Amino acid sequence: MRVLYAQSGGVTSVINASAYGVLDEARKAGMEVFVGIHGVTGILKEHLLKINDMDIEGLKYTPAGAFGSCRRKMKTQEDISKLFDVIEKYKIEYFFYNGGNDSMDTAWRIAQEAKTRGFPLKVIGVPKTIDNDLPYTDHCPGYGSAAKYIAISIMEASLDLRSMYVDSTRVFVMEIMGRHAGWLVAAAGLGWLNGIGADIILFPEVYFNKEKFLERVDEIIRKKGYCSIAVSEGIRYPDGFFVSDMGYTDSFGNRQLGGVGFTIAGMIRSELSLKTHVAIPDYLQRSGRHIASKTDIEEAEMVGRTAVRLALSGVTGVMITIERKSNNPYTVEYGTVELNKVADQTKYLPEEFHDDFEITENFVEYAKPLIEGELFPQFRNGLPKYTIFREVEEQ
Amino acid sequence: MRVLYAQSGGVTSVINASAYGVLDEARKAGMEVFVGIHGVTGILKEHLLKINDMDIEGLKYTPAGAFGSCRRKMKTQEDISKLFDVIEKYKIEYFFYNGGNDSMDTAWRIAQEAKTRGFPLKVIGVPKTIDNDLPYTDHCPGYGSAAKYIAISIMEASLDLRSMYVDSTRVFVMEIMGRHAGWLVAAAGLGWLNGIGADIILFPEVYFNKEKFLERVDEIIRKKGYCSIAVSEGIRYPDGFFVSDMGYTDSFGNRQLGGVGFTIAGMIRSELSLKTHVAIPDYLQRSGRHIASKTDIEEAEMVGRTAVRLALSGVTGVMITIERKSNNPYTVEYGTVELNKVADQTKYLPEEFHDDFEITENFVEYAKPLIEGELFPQFRNGLPKYTIFREVEEQ
Repeated sequence: MRVLYAQSGGVTSVINASAYGVLDEARKAGMEVFVGIHGVTGILKEHLLKINDMDIEGLKYTPAGAFGSCRRKMKTQEDISKLFDVIEKYKIEYFFYNGGNDSMDTAWRIAQEAKTRGFPLKVIGVPKTIDNDLPYTDHCPGYGSAAKYIAISIMEASLDLRSMYVDSTRVFVMEIMGRHAGWLVAAAGLGWLNGIGADIILFPEVYFNKEKFLERVDEIIRKKGYCSIAVSEGIRYPDGFFVSDMGYTDSFGNRQLGGVGFTIAGMIRSELSLKTHVAIPDYLQRSGRHIASKTDIEEAEMVGRTAVRLALSGVTGVMITIERKSNNPYTVEYGTVELNKVADQTKYLPEEFHDDFEITENFVEYAKPLIEGELFPQFRNGLPKYTIFREVEEQ
Repeated sequence: MRVLYAQSGGVTSVINASAYGVLDEARKAGMEVFVGIHGVTGILKEHLLKINDMDIEGLKYTPAGAFGSCRRKMKTQEDISKLFDVIEKYKIEYFFYNGGNDSMDTAWRIAQEAKTRGFPLKVIGVPKTIDNDLPYTDHCPGYGSAAKYIAISIMEASLDLRSMYVDSTRVFVMEIMGRHAGWLVAAAGLGWLNGIGADIILFPEVYFNKEKFLERVDEIIRKKGYCSIAVSEGIRYPDGFFVSDMGYTDSFGNRQLGGVGFTIAGMIRSELSLKTHVAIPDYLQRSGRHIASKTDIEEAEMVGRTAVRLALSGVTGVMITIERKSNNPYTVEYGTVELNKVADQTKYLPEEFHDDFEITENFVEYAKPLIEGELFPQFRNGLPKYTIFREVEEQ
């Protein structure tokens, strides 16, 4: 029995823990296990790596896509046919695609093609996204760790700001990923559980109102002397325009955003005459494995293992979901949802999780278990020992 | 016997470990221990905190200035006189000022004033700076932890980039602090000890040559498909102009820099047509206590303790230095240097530590012991438990 696994879309600090779950579970079940290098891009080129004899334990501790990812969408029948030809050629019976919304769409098309061809391929989607915007699952592997990174980073930066404000920087602005949904930026408020966090959060779900925002900054400055702000890269004006648009589109036609932190800081400097500092963690927030959430790592691995177990029992055409069973103690079960339901959907931060500038107690309840626990990588030379497969660089 | 301690200048993730060293040592010696809130700014307002009965153990694990810092320079006799009046009023016999170059200048002026007034005040400077640019000391407390944060962050981001480059981002640019000296940006190369790090480093000590730089990026892209770049905020053109000047000056007349990462990325996009990502960790790199270096933390504490011990033995007018005795095993001793020698001096990254775009083996030898070891904070709710004294916010 042959298994094919591949990674797709923007990576996370725990996607390799899912890889470990899939690969270890499949290997233990006696299967021949292949990995497509750089997702469907590598599969199309028959760039497959057989992992049965490889040491893959380190994947649990390594961020980003250890086998390479890709952003390639498979929207045409021609694409799907070519991909399937490789799957047939290698006699693959189980395909696990580890990604976000777009990847679930690809997985769904492959499952459909298997039906059409009458080929006994089981296809299961393994979710990952720091954005946490996949529907039908309580949350996504990758989110908890990014949320933890963001929460800790703004706690630390706010302590720094608090040291400096009497005669230097008064306002710190941190720009957070998440173009459409405010799950990540919301995490900037979690630090208040331990005494310090973002004073103001700008969610993509709330239209940006410059006047109201500057009033709030001014109010906080008058009250405590300094103000730390977390801003989503995706905030928009009521007319729908992004507050900071980089002025060009990427290869998928998405507008490139960036620098909204500087835009916001510029408003504060010019309108309130306060000294500002701006941080843009960018990739750091999604690859910060050194401070990943233990809950997230364990769930990422279990989502992978569950995918293999269900596929072996005959399930196909679904994505694995996480269902929260209770909060105290925090327990989850793993379920499934049809791939085509997930594809191209976005789950926004619900209204009960945020106000205009702050998170609510409901969000804290939701997010707290997801950032719980640490599972530090091993260190050598004062730096994490990450697993780096050189095969990824053979183009 | 009364002791006064205060923090000054840009903070670090281990300055509070020095505070702990000073305060604990002084307290154990039976002294009455006061802290000036927000450095000399608080002292001038007689905003002093007596810490003898306070729980200060958490300082070892808490980043930034737990007692508040300030950027105020004391350049006039009037300033010094006012400050000294407070010192006399409170019958302070020992003054420990924890800061960088400017703070050592202030400490020196206070020591001079004590002589002039014939007042038996011992003054000792306790060094701190992430920039590592103080002379007469092998390195500064604060540097090792910031270096470790930078090395790990660019390792992780480079792994991310390496996952994505086949059809998405090809170049990752991380902007690093350090206006004049390249110590911090150099740390971006340390990840190669464990297999991945910055491909190109732009040092403030090397004039920026756009053509040569773009050639190097192109060469690396051709060779391995992606390129990660660490750029110092302080890089300049041969005419002395900063590559990215924010267009205004701060309250000390220093030009405000920022966004050089975007400038560099813009060049790459427009000249090489490659997709880029930019990270600007800003305060995160100097407050990232969650991943601080154990070596750095322990030295920060020892520098504080040494200051108290020497002051008790009658020493005054000096800053504590760290003298490296051997690299294998790494051992140090603590020494002293006259305060006036340190004031307003900058130690640049020496030529044997870097080439045009890379660090040398000599730098690796130098920096490796400084980032060694971890001493994680305690966690609660999935977040670090930091010590936050509310007194700092009483203005």
